[in-house]
Amino acid sequence: MAEQPRSPEARKADVLAKLHAPVADAWVATADGDEPYLVPLTAAWCEERVVLATDASSPTARNLTAHGRARVALGATRDVVLIDATLEKTIPVADAGEIGEAYAAQNDWDPRTAGDSYVFLLLRPERIQAWREVNELAGRTLMRNGTWLV
Amino acid sequence: MAEQPRSPEARKADVLAKLHAPVADAWVATADGDEPYLVPLTAAWCEERVVLATDASSPTARNLTAHGRARVALGATRDVVLIDATLEKTIPVADAGEIGEAYAAQNDWDPRTAGDSYVFLLLRPERIQAWREVNELAGRTLMRNGTWLV
Repeated sequence: MAEQPRSPEARKADVLAKLHAPVADAWVATADGDEPYLVPLTAAWCEERVVLATDASSPTARNLTAHGRARVALGATRDVVLIDATLEKTIPVADAGEIGEAYAAQNDWDPRTAGDSYVFLLLRPERIQAWREVNELAGRTLMRNGTWLV
Repeated sequence: MAEQPRSPEARKADVLAKLHAPVADAWVATADGDEPYLVPLTAAWCEERVVLATDASSPTARNLTAHGRARVALGATRDVVLIDATLEKTIPVADAGEIGEAYAAQNDWDPRTAGDSYVFLLLRPERIQAWREVNELAGRTLMRNGTWLV
């Protein structure tokens, strides 16, 4: 039996808890010319941006650099957070400053030790949706055009 | 501390167990013109095909119909199965026959009761990869060009 739908405020709190969690594992979808790509990456949440770290030559980094768009999922398939986001900035790990500090503090690895080819990818969320079961599909949009609705 | 890497045979057994599991929740990435799409869907595994069920008007069904390609993830971000797949067939739920029986038997809902706009999407796996931690990245490819390597 499904629980009662959460309030928008409770959903936003759950979204932020997932984004702030130690080792926030995310599924990151990007695309290149109708071809989808999808990998798990560890995310951080810093200054209202989703921060990813990967090799600059990886398909995820290349697709984001070329086309600027990602769709990021956190949580489980029946406790979903989906974030449509745009690449704001790519920062080589050697130049990452506070972003690098924040990422390493939240997670269980430090991309700044992974080699010069690694970069931080800062994604600006444009739309955020969160739902558990069918009874939460209504009201699932918590951010639109980069602005929290709650 | 990471465990020892699993053998290829053990990984294949784990992949098939995930695909055969009751309520196999999958992350399904598709794309349209450099724009990624990603949603959770419940999968079934029938005759070596990944079977999805969704509304024919959904972005996933439209992207697959237009471009034929999906990348499907099962498991958790540190116990990953990734499947690159091609759309083989789209079957209206009313005409699904054995596929519809198999899907309903494996899962906790029956798309044949969801309305005439629902379809089954049969995806043919071309590449299957499975890994847990970094020490399993070597040897992660279990299927290539539609053929099991183990």
